[in-house]
Amino acid sequence: MEQKSSSYPYVVEPFTEDYCGNLSWSRLGNLILRCASMHAGEHGFGYTQMQAVHHAWVLSRLVIEMQQPLLTGQHFSIETWVDRVYRQFTDRHFTLRLADGSVCGHATSTWSLIDTASRQPADLTRLADGGFTHVLMADRPAPIAPLGRIRLKHPQPVDTHRAAYTDLDINGHVNSIRYIDLLLNQFSPEQLRDNPVRRIEMAYCLEAYWGDTLSVFRDDDPNDPARSLYEIRKGGGETVVRGSLQLSHQPAEK
Amino acid sequence: MEQKSSSYPYVVEPFTEDYCGNLSWSRLGNLILRCASMHAGEHGFGYTQMQAVHHAWVLSRLVIEMQQPLLTGQHFSIETWVDRVYRQFTDRHFTLRLADGSVCGHATSTWSLIDTASRQPADLTRLADGGFTHVLMADRPAPIAPLGRIRLKHPQPVDTHRAAYTDLDINGHVNSIRYIDLLLNQFSPEQLRDNPVRRIEMAYCLEAYWGDTLSVFRDDDPNDPARSLYEIRKGGGETVVRGSLQLSHQPAEK
Repeated sequence: MEQKSSSYPYVVEPFTEDYCGNLSWSRLGNLILRCASMHAGEHGFGYTQMQAVHHAWVLSRLVIEMQQPLLTGQHFSIETWVDRVYRQFTDRHFTLRLADGSVCGHATSTWSLIDTASRQPADLTRLADGGFTHVLMADRPAPIAPLGRIRLKHPQPVDTHRAAYTDLDINGHVNSIRYIDLLLNQFSPEQLRDNPVRRIEMAYCLEAYWGDTLSVFRDDDPNDPARSLYEIRKGGGETVVRGSLQLSHQPAEK
Repeated sequence: MEQKSSSYPYVVEPFTEDYCGNLSWSRLGNLILRCASMHAGEHGFGYTQMQAVHHAWVLSRLVIEMQQPLLTGQHFSIETWVDRVYRQFTDRHFTLRLADGSVCGHATSTWSLIDTASRQPADLTRLADGGFTHVLMADRPAPIAPLGRIRLKHPQPVDTHRAAYTDLDINGHVNSIRYIDLLLNQFSPEQLRDNPVRRIEMAYCLEAYWGDTLSVFRDDDPNDPARSLYEIRKGGGETVVRGSLQLSHQPAEK
């Protein structure tokens, strides 16, 4: 029987840590995307296979929750699986484990498949040959809560960033994970050392490109003092990303 | 007989590439620093050993030259060795090879060892027990030209960047390799795709910290149209880094 989930081994390499001495969120986020790509490729619906039929995967939502940080030299694994397909979306989940098998974090993501010519989303429930229904694990739903409400009632402009060469991925878009850096950069090193980030939520609305001026807006979450809400807008005002950061408790002033 | 140089195997992982589809300079730069750290550690003069005697290594110069780019999935190795010690400096070199043994790039670096209490450099020729003279390879000098002249006659302000959380290393300094990103970001994706970077030179003068406003100044090299010169200054005007980028040929206008 085909193995429906896959698990990939990693180690926290020196010089991939952040100021706090943990595996950086940007390295972690890119490893998560890489595991998604490898698992899809192994089961016939990866980047190359989809490209051959003029389709491409687009990341729509990403939530990462760490119960404990990963430290330099620690061995860990990322297991990933897909539990469902609904219209143009599919949900892919991740569990991070230390070498002793204990869980240190989870992630959940939502993807759509777009037609690269028409830019329209494909109906995933109607793919040829049943698409990737053979790999779905309906008995393993999301291990963490899905993306919560991200509505900024009083958005305050807090930062701007001009999208530059090293922000781009191989497709010429601002890398999905780079936006996480933009949210983290709204805090001081001391704040994040004293209040480690527990959960990051990202909802991707629109691609940004080289030269775009990205404006970061922030608001408090009225229901959770440890959670802050963000919206990143392009020059013209269109929303590129909405996101949230939840710290382990309420941060002190900068 | 003790092996004086060490070679470390790597592979270009998906999601570590830049827009051009090559191993990103930032990932490459951090791998080079990591190999330096591992080699020093194996021979008794690494970070931990130096910390125990209240000293720390400080990177003073770094030059990287790639003859061909590293592509996704390619296996490569980084060999590193130290060829000499002179007063407060030591030179460490690197050769990058593909799986078939062919050379694809080189790097050379200069380091000093500072007393973490007095912040004064140690005289490396007078370390206890001969220091690390046992590991010097005087017969293997730098595989590439040392840092060239970086003197900006007409410095033009081209960019500013406020040092933020994700720029910091574990010591709270702006990561040495992040400055390379600031230089690359003075080009458009098309310019760097059509004219790959051949050589990067960095001279580190002063540490920058969270919140510092970094101003990037640029000038042409009057003797080489493919080479541009940079100076990064802090708010107060002190030079943090001088650097240069040499493209494969003269870039077109942005």
